[in-house]
Amino acid sequence: MNSEIKMIARLAAMARHPAAHGLTDDTAHLDGKILTHDTIAEGVHYRTDDPPESVGWKLAAVNLSDLAAKGAQPVGALLSLTMAPPTEGMADGEWEDRFLTGLDAACETYGMPLIGGDTIALPAGAPRVLGLTAIGEAAENVPTRDGGLPGDELWVVGTLGDSMAGLAQLAKDAQAAGALVDIYRRPVPQLAAGKAIAPHAHAMMDVSDGLLLDATRLAMASLCRANIDLACLPLSAAFTKVRGKGRKARLFAATGGDDYALLAALPPGKARKLSKSLPPGTIFSRVGTLADGEGLALVHDGHHVPLPEHLGHEHRPASPAPDSA
Amino acid sequence: MNSEIKMIARLAAMARHPAAHGLTDDTAHLDGKILTHDTIAEGVHYRTDDPPESVGWKLAAVNLSDLAAKGAQPVGALLSLTMAPPTEGMADGEWEDRFLTGLDAACETYGMPLIGGDTIALPAGAPRVLGLTAIGEAAENVPTRDGGLPGDELWVVGTLGDSMAGLAQLAKDAQAAGALVDIYRRPVPQLAAGKAIAPHAHAMMDVSDGLLLDATRLAMASLCRANIDLACLPLSAAFTKVRGKGRKARLFAATGGDDYALLAALPPGKARKLSKSLPPGTIFSRVGTLADGEGLALVHDGHHVPLPEHLGHEHRPASPAPDSA
Repeated sequence: MNSEIKMIARLAAMARHPAAHGLTDDTAHLDGKILTHDTIAEGVHYRTDDPPESVGWKLAAVNLSDLAAKGAQPVGALLSLTMAPPTEGMADGEWEDRFLTGLDAACETYGMPLIGGDTIALPAGAPRVLGLTAIGEAAENVPTRDGGLPGDELWVVGTLGDSMAGLAQLAKDAQAAGALVDIYRRPVPQLAAGKAIAPHAHAMMDVSDGLLLDATRLAMASLCRANIDLACLPLSAAFTKVRGKGRKARLFAATGGDDYALLAALPPGKARKLSKSLPPGTIFSRVGTLADGEGLALVHDGHHVPLPEHLGHEHRPASPAPDSA
Repeated sequence: MNSEIKMIARLAAMARHPAAHGLTDDTAHLDGKILTHDTIAEGVHYRTDDPPESVGWKLAAVNLSDLAAKGAQPVGALLSLTMAPPTEGMADGEWEDRFLTGLDAACETYGMPLIGGDTIALPAGAPRVLGLTAIGEAAENVPTRDGGLPGDELWVVGTLGDSMAGLAQLAKDAQAAGALVDIYRRPVPQLAAGKAIAPHAHAMMDVSDGLLLDATRLAMASLCRANIDLACLPLSAAFTKVRGKGRKARLFAATGGDDYALLAALPPGKARKLSKSLPPGTIFSRVGTLADGEGLALVHDGHHVPLPEHLGHEHRPASPAPDSA
């Protein structure tokens, strides 16, 4: 949407304060606090038939993932809750009640207390729009997107593609269940790993719109080229069982988005030592490097791979990409 | 809406952190910062035909008014902007561009830099939902709603009823213009007055939903009764010219809401000295007292006045109250 790109450019021009960092990051950094706000809309960022608990969990998780990418410790959240007329098949207020149950669970799990917000009523027929402002205590080193250097290694925390593969299953069958659907519904923000990596990262961000798109953003901000090796993508067993390990599956995982993973640019050799300080079981994978140049270069098994038409999603879609058969 | 009241009660139960103050205030107080979030929706909080610049200005002003009630100095804001398909008669993106012009003007005027946020696209036909999180530097004394004492005087900063009178004019004639329409479209948050009063106030809040409703809330939180004298309401010349000075006009002004005024509980005699430190031209009016007891008592010219059915609006409406002829 062209007007949206123009609008984001105008917002960046308005945000001249140093705390805004030109809106090139997902968060603001003000007086030792990291602040982020994410808004999700029914039918855009989640399916109308998604369980409300899952929507509440994800609204918290998407903000927590932004804090994780800064190595920040959550300290509070403000909720913007819109009340809509009863959802089909639910009692009045049931959707919102279950939504709050999911939100509360995520806030409890990650120690982010709800400290304020606003509740408003929407007209009949309006899609719900839900927002959360998350506040974190800034770490001593707050990595941005633009500190990557040629020669840095690109590392990913977490696996890629699970959530979009789960969403594709739901698009085919609303009753689908299993590990991939679970990850789509209840993603895990990488807070502890983010905290461990932040002091050492030249650059870090969360992978929310697809690795290829987000790596390109990090590389552009850092005035480098990103080299990504598709053979190195972290794929879960649940993912490869359903979609295989071929190039098509890898491109799906690298462009789908909705991953709640972290992407870090680390000095060569740093990750080996660092990996010992990550929570047990953390999946931590070297997926490429930064180099002199610009843009993105893709290889697979030693062969150059042409870039796909879409590197990722500007917004997390509520329906899978057309090629997600 | 019953389910909404239940939901707010549930949110208050979730917000156990001291920074939340049980959600009894409009703001959170965290580590020396005051945080507030207000969300407005098309057709609920503003008219679809309101100039977009006015909507942007008001979204900033409604949050600034919450900061003013705490005596806080604005230090930053995060915007949640939804992009909708082109509004009738406007080019693609024009509504949002003009909205940002109004928001930027208010942010510039009151020194609140935009430091972050989120921009999302909405499906066709969805009403716009716009949110702002405002952050302020906390004053040494941060007044809450619950500190009022029997014997305190109740003082109002600003005039009452102008905005709703302007809205009533627009409801009759969308081309209406004049001082009241101007106040509806470009309200002034009382930041400087709030800062001057905060060190001395036992309790303070902004009057946004109608004086009678907000005074009742302050009195309830302070375990007192509020006595309000309708004869003392601050009414502007523009207001009395259009609606007169009679009891009906006074009740309209005291219950309409959308006022961006402040209500403070002050120790007796404090206001006289305090008024010298207010910005020149500030309208500062003693409208009543707090007393032992509970609820609200209304007098006018020495006579007891029965309470109106509606003391105010739970949400700022986009159409005037039915009695606003």
